[in-house]
Amino acid sequence: MEPRVSLVTLGVRDVARARTFYVDGLGWDPLTEVPAEVVFVQVGHGLLLSLWRRSDLLAESGQDGTGSDRAGSVVPVALAHNVSSPAEVDAVLASARAAGGTVVVPAQAREWGGYSGYFADPDGFRWEVAHNPGLVVGDDGRVTLEAVEPDPGAW
Amino acid sequence: MEPRVSLVTLGVRDVARARTFYVDGLGWDPLTEVPAEVVFVQVGHGLLLSLWRRSDLLAESGQDGTGSDRAGSVVPVALAHNVSSPAEVDAVLASARAAGGTVVVPAQAREWGGYSGYFADPDGFRWEVAHNPGLVVGDDGRVTLEAVEPDPGAW
Repeated sequence: MEPRVSLVTLGVRDVARARTFYVDGLGWDPLTEVPAEVVFVQVGHGLLLSLWRRSDLLAESGQDGTGSDRAGSVVPVALAHNVSSPAEVDAVLASARAAGGTVVVPAQAREWGGYSGYFADPDGFRWEVAHNPGLVVGDDGRVTLEAVEPDPGAW
Repeated sequence: MEPRVSLVTLGVRDVARARTFYVDGLGWDPLTEVPAEVVFVQVGHGLLLSLWRRSDLLAESGQDGTGSDRAGSVVPVALAHNVSSPAEVDAVLASARAAGGTVVVPAQAREWGGYSGYFADPDGFRWEVAHNPGLVVGDDGRVTLEAVEPDPGAW
C-alpha cells in the first residue's frame, strides 16, 4: 500500500452549519456538494476535504454499532486512499489485514459509481480504500469529481 | 484563509504499535520520528501524516479538559494549516474566529522552533495554524522536516 491520502472526511453534525463556516466564512469554494449531505473542497495537490453528514460516515465506516472497532471508541473522521481499479481495492485491503489492520467493512459497489471498503488501524482509525472512476487528479494536482453511473455488474 | 491541509495528525494510544502497523506492516518510510512520541510519513504532494502520542495531541489542541470544546466531545485528530510567518498565523486565527470558529489554543512559540495555535470548527474539529520554519515543501511536493532552534524572542 502506497503512502497516500486522497481525501480527509470530517463527519459533521450539521452539514449546512459546516458549510456556513468553511464556504461562507473562510471563503473556500466547494468542488461539488449535495445540500445537507456533503460538501467537497480541494485542500491540496490531489487532496480533498469532505464535510459529510456524521451519521452517514459512522454507518458506512462501521462505527454505528454494526462493525467491529478494536479501540472501542468512535471517531467521526475517515481518511481515503484512492486506487485505480476495484482489484487494487481488494489487494490493498488484503495488505492492510496482513499488516495487522482490521477490515471493518468489506469492499462493495457504491451508489456513487465506485467500489470501496474500510480497514481500521490498531487505534480504530478508519481508512477507506476506494476506486472512484469519477475522481480524476490532473498532472497539476487539480481534482475533478463527478458522479458516474453505478455498474455493479462490472465487479 | 486558503484551503490547504499540510498535515493530518492521528492521536494514537501507542506510537510503537502504530509504527509497527504503518512502517513495518504497510512499508511506509518515516520522514522523521521520535521514538514512542511521534512518527511523520509523507502521504501526498506537500502532505504529511503524523502519528502522535494521543495524550500530547489532546493536551496541545485543548481537548484535555483545559480548553473549550463547543461540541463537547473529544476527537483525537487534528488538521494542520501551515503558513509562512508568525504574523500569518495570527491573521489566519483571526479570520477563523471571524468566520465563526473558536480559537481554543492561543498562538504561541513551540519547542520545535515554530509558532502555532488552534481553532475549532463548529463541530469542534481541531485545526492547527502553524508557522514551521523547519518544514519545507519543494516544488515537486517533497517535504523536508527538521527541528530548528526555538527563538521565542523573535516573536
